[in-house]
Amino acid sequence: MDISTFYCSKPTRSEKTIEDLMVSCLVEVNFLKDKEIQNILSLFHVQTFKKGTLLLNEGEIPRATYHNFGGCIRQFHLKNGEEKTTAFYTENQSVDAITGFSSNTPAPYYLECTEDTTVAILHRKGRSELFKCFPQFESLYRVDIEQKFHNYQQRFTHFMTSTPEERYLNLLDTRPDLLYRVPQYQLASYLGIKPESLSRIRKRIASK
Amino acid sequence: MDISTFYCSKPTRSEKTIEDLMVSCLVEVNFLKDKEIQNILSLFHVQTFKKGTLLLNEGEIPRATYHNFGGCIRQFHLKNGEEKTTAFYTENQSVDAITGFSSNTPAPYYLECTEDTTVAILHRKGRSELFKCFPQFESLYRVDIEQKFHNYQQRFTHFMTSTPEERYLNLLDTRPDLLYRVPQYQLASYLGIKPESLSRIRKRIASK
Repeated sequence: MDISTFYCSKPTRSEKTIEDLMVSCLVEVNFLKDKEIQNILSLFHVQTFKKGTLLLNEGEIPRATYHNFGGCIRQFHLKNGEEKTTAFYTENQSVDAITGFSSNTPAPYYLECTEDTTVAILHRKGRSELFKCFPQFESLYRVDIEQKFHNYQQRFTHFMTSTPEERYLNLLDTRPDLLYRVPQYQLASYLGIKPESLSRIRKRIASK
Repeated sequence: MDISTFYCSKPTRSEKTIEDLMVSCLVEVNFLKDKEIQNILSLFHVQTFKKGTLLLNEGEIPRATYHNFGGCIRQFHLKNGEEKTTAFYTENQSVDAITGFSSNTPAPYYLECTEDTTVAILHRKGRSELFKCFPQFESLYRVDIEQKFHNYQQRFTHFMTSTPEERYLNLLDTRPDLLYRVPQYQLASYLGIKPESLSRIRKRIASK
């Protein structure tokens, strides 16, 4: 089973629907029995948070991982009072803000729901239990985290080797939904530029 | 066992010394018997490459992972004929250029030894065998890759949220050896700036 099949293909806000979906995915895992599926599900918690909720504050030790089933989570840092947005996690994406979670140390960032957001939550203890009782999941998780790392490296490489305009065009190509879901100042920060530079880039492209 | 204990604390060019070191680390793993240690060692290959050797060309599928025991490996991309350096791996660092290796697809980058470099090589097949025969290693690897991902995220975050001068000062603080081991144009590229900007930053800091 590819871990991504865990996740729904369309955004939804119904917590019950999400739980049903998780069951149907687990049923496909051929090494699991019915009771085990229920045990695994009990480790996850599906919850909807209102827009504006901070899932994590800077300085807190992250105690859970999140998978986003519908909505948008923003990761940002505060530097000299200025917000620096480093990631957006939308439908079918896991929050891969691993810093702090893996090392059990205070996080240097915030996680904020920028829309009403429904997530499946897996706490640190639940994850350890999952790996202990079902070592196969650790193997699946290993493959999953390699894929995330791979995606992250591609993103960093693109960021390092591109001009701001190229970064914007890449965003248009890969995550066009962010353009209407996210305020311009957050988007500019995510692209590593000032809001006025983003405006200039958009005008330049629109006039072509 | 922390996987990092696998690695020598001082750079060395002696392949025999490195193999002895790997044995001494494996002896500490309490679930391994003597014969198993020999089996594991047989999966690794220690080799020294001359300065200038390309361990990987753009477009090749990466078939191995490397741990650097002495020397320097540079990762770079070619964009419009220009080299864009994205990483340096020096003593006691694993090459975490996972793109291509995890997905079994052509790599979009090069790996070049910028000094004579001694590495332990683990091929894809050897890694699968290691995980299959010793599932505990997959668990160690999972923790290791989480740590690498964590470090990588910190590096990207710093890159995104810092000025070029702050990036340079951070390099002075965290990897001062690179300043005398690496040509200025490669270092500038790694910092995301032009060589002339790096010269200006260095002069400004020297004059303070």
